[in-house]
Amino acid sequence: MKRLPASFLPPIALVRKSKIAMYRQLYDWFRHAITSNQLRPGQRVPSTRNLAAELKISRIPVLAAYEQLLAEGYLETFTGAGTCVAKSIPDEAARPPITKVGTTSPRKPRRKAPRRISRRVGLLGLQEQLWLNDLVAFRVSLPALDHFPIAVWSKLVIRHSRKPAREVLAYGNAMGYPPFREAIAEYLGAVRAVRCDPSQILVTTGSQQGLQLSAHVLLDSRDRAWMEEPGYLGARQAFMIAGTKIVPVPVDHEGLNVEEGIRRGRGARAVYITPSHQYPLGVTMSATRRMQLLSWAERTGAWIIEDDYDSEYRFGSRPITSLQGLDAEARVIYVGTFSKVMFPALRLGYLVVPKDLARAFTAAREATDIFSSTLYQAVMTDFIREGHFARHIRRMRMLYAERRAVLVEAIRKEIGDKLEVIGEEAGMHLVVLLPPGVSDVAVSVKAAKRGVSVVPLSSCYAKPPKRGGLILGYGGTDPVQIREGARTLATCV
Amino acid sequence: MKRLPASFLPPIALVRKSKIAMYRQLYDWFRHAITSNQLRPGQRVPSTRNLAAELKISRIPVLAAYEQLLAEGYLETFTGAGTCVAKSIPDEAARPPITKVGTTSPRKPRRKAPRRISRRVGLLGLQEQLWLNDLVAFRVSLPALDHFPIAVWSKLVIRHSRKPAREVLAYGNAMGYPPFREAIAEYLGAVRAVRCDPSQILVTTGSQQGLQLSAHVLLDSRDRAWMEEPGYLGARQAFMIAGTKIVPVPVDHEGLNVEEGIRRGRGARAVYITPSHQYPLGVTMSATRRMQLLSWAERTGAWIIEDDYDSEYRFGSRPITSLQGLDAEARVIYVGTFSKVMFPALRLGYLVVPKDLARAFTAAREATDIFSSTLYQAVMTDFIREGHFARHIRRMRMLYAERRAVLVEAIRKEIGDKLEVIGEEAGMHLVVLLPPGVSDVAVSVKAAKRGVSVVPLSSCYAKPPKRGGLILGYGGTDPVQIREGARTLATCV
Repeated sequence: MKRLPASFLPPIALVRKSKIAMYRQLYDWFRHAITSNQLRPGQRVPSTRNLAAELKISRIPVLAAYEQLLAEGYLETFTGAGTCVAKSIPDEAARPPITKVGTTSPRKPRRKAPRRISRRVGLLGLQEQLWLNDLVAFRVSLPALDHFPIAVWSKLVIRHSRKPAREVLAYGNAMGYPPFREAIAEYLGAVRAVRCDPSQILVTTGSQQGLQLSAHVLLDSRDRAWMEEPGYLGARQAFMIAGTKIVPVPVDHEGLNVEEGIRRGRGARAVYITPSHQYPLGVTMSATRRMQLLSWAERTGAWIIEDDYDSEYRFGSRPITSLQGLDAEARVIYVGTFSKVMFPALRLGYLVVPKDLARAFTAAREATDIFSSTLYQAVMTDFIREGHFARHIRRMRMLYAERRAVLVEAIRKEIGDKLEVIGEEAGMHLVVLLPPGVSDVAVSVKAAKRGVSVVPLSSCYAKPPKRGGLILGYGGTDPVQIREGARTLATCV
Repeated sequence: MKRLPASFLPPIALVRKSKIAMYRQLYDWFRHAITSNQLRPGQRVPSTRNLAAELKISRIPVLAAYEQLLAEGYLETFTGAGTCVAKSIPDEAARPPITKVGTTSPRKPRRKAPRRISRRVGLLGLQEQLWLNDLVAFRVSLPALDHFPIAVWSKLVIRHSRKPAREVLAYGNAMGYPPFREAIAEYLGAVRAVRCDPSQILVTTGSQQGLQLSAHVLLDSRDRAWMEEPGYLGARQAFMIAGTKIVPVPVDHEGLNVEEGIRRGRGARAVYITPSHQYPLGVTMSATRRMQLLSWAERTGAWIIEDDYDSEYRFGSRPITSLQGLDAEARVIYVGTFSKVMFPALRLGYLVVPKDLARAFTAAREATDIFSSTLYQAVMTDFIREGHFARHIRRMRMLYAERRAVLVEAIRKEIGDKLEVIGEEAGMHLVVLLPPGVSDVAVSVKAAKRGVSVVPLSSCYAKPPKRGGLILGYGGTDPVQIREGARTLATCV
């Protein structure tokens, strides 16, 4: 075995039991030696075999380090000449000096130009919402992850990953993976009386993207849209970033007050609505109001964006037909998601769009982010087709009904008559009204600091409401956590 | 074994060797029987055991069919009472009659309200681009999928799927999975001289989303932005959907003509630019122009959106430092993607944003689609950390250099001097100029019909150019396909 001349390289100190991988230590050493000119451009470095022998380590980390250094342009190989330090080092050398050019120039310092960003983003409100941190109890929208059939799911992921079809890697369709769109169309037709064929299904990364796309396709900047007051903050934000002017329309025990909308929001081009289970109040929209809304849309040419979130979960009462299924004029864009029924990081939802709008939605999706990753679409297709999805929903329906009952009981027991529970028995959250004069934001902040996540009802209002409240999710909170969370919450009210 | 009374159910005809699964046939039969009132609300149905025995089939499909019917509300179970047809059927019954109410009413038919969508979507151009279909040769942006190290990748996917960490399922960070952001920051610092820490990295679903977010965060509707002429159509669309007014600025052999930009586009709030490898012409922006551009941005408070696409692949010449690395005033938003280096369906890219804009970008991401799916982020982190990424890039660099050479040779041989190849030796595509007077769209359409995908250069212009050209991708086209594609193309010119 050839020995390296001792003078060949500066000494390399490797820490054998370091947390830093051996290849990384070697890589760092070479990079530093090259950028600090300890190794000169064009200088030959030992072969991987010789260096490994010299250092008495395996050749694998040496190979990995050299490969990275080659890939990044620190080293070069020439046939017959072995491996050398690159003639011109790409980056460090090219970095500008840390002191700015301007500071040494004779002209007097200029006032800096402002760092202006868009008004629409400024309007979103850039404060962090403490209650959305990863806390234990009552996180809204979080499903029961520990009850998700992970073994079945993993098996399907592995099935599509081990020898992936070309379509799992290549460019996909902006509207979604065709078999998945078929499965969604069938599912919605059967369960939600949505009338559509697969050509109307646009697979999204979740309902948020569905709303954002709808806002951009249907509305120009400064167009007006009705929003439920109180309503879903995420929807308000999706429309705000599209530049929409939002007209808040009050919600009562029959859902959105259409007559009030007509009075306040003349000329509106769209309405965002949650008719099956109003967010956050939990009201079901009455049949009369549904007909009023459809007739308004037909008359004025407005679009209805129906967010049918949590429609999978109704306890006790029968499922409500979707507005889309009642709409004879193709005025409804239907928005749904799998992320809450399955798991949030799935990032798969869907839109059902009128047939004559499919091309416009496709173009908007291409301009926005081209298409959704295919792997989970293929996996979810199998999950539906093989019956796992229906089974999972049925199980979760029972689980959430039970959790809701536990929560209502815990509130009654721990907080007594200070809080009033409102809303239909459905979904994955409920709302409690606070006594008049109590600030819901103050309660939410206090609760978040004690590890309990409750969303202040006032955050769902465009204008501050007379009476505050709290939104409590129970989907991802088990009975023990529910009882404990209710005790903690009692100390915050 | 108990026998069912023969009268209990209408006859069920199952096709044993059908492509339609047995459970599905059963499900369809029941659903039809229920909605058509052959089975009446409240009527008891046989137990799964009895029905399986009656039909002489396994109990599994019967269980699956019943579960689906239960989940969808067609059947109900009552303790002690077994399974019955649901008392109220959710959907079919609730469907409105097919004939519209309006047509039978006495009032005279109203003119229909227009089906108006947004102008910004209308501007995108809703024609299908034939040349983007899944054709064999020259698809732009497609990498060599058959050379992707799928075995290594699958192993990592399976590692994170078999027993997924909670974070792979739950809500993730709008900015991205923290270890992934760290890996990206390190990689960009080392390879592209991008100066950033992980807090500045926003993980996107690809560079398209990076552009769309930048447009929404930095610009309001009707704000002006410079775009290279010719330039990347996808970028133009991302800005158009945000309502941006685009100012085309000509590109010459030094890249974007900054002086011309200042003349034509006064008051512009941003510029979109591809300095390392101008898309589509392949020019590298000169150092003088870089400094002019940075100085313009500093002076006017404009933002620079630097799209560093394909920077991994330079053949022969040394890598060019990013503009971001030269920018002392934090005016650059740096856009990149892994989708073209890895595989398109990965849907992972990144933005590097100035520190003081991180919160605004986070809010915009939340309003747009909340966060990126976590699985691939975790897998990609390992792929980088374990050295596979650097190795893959190095291999692809050699492969693409070779494919480029084969393509240039094939064009020379098959089409001779009718076409002129332009652009630096870099990336995954090249441009050929057509003889004056030849329509590039006509050639592209003809080629697409013969199975060859070439993008007309004129599609990259806001105003039609004097001389047409074709963009040919060679990343995903192997030498045999390249030669064959060139022969076909020769018949179209």
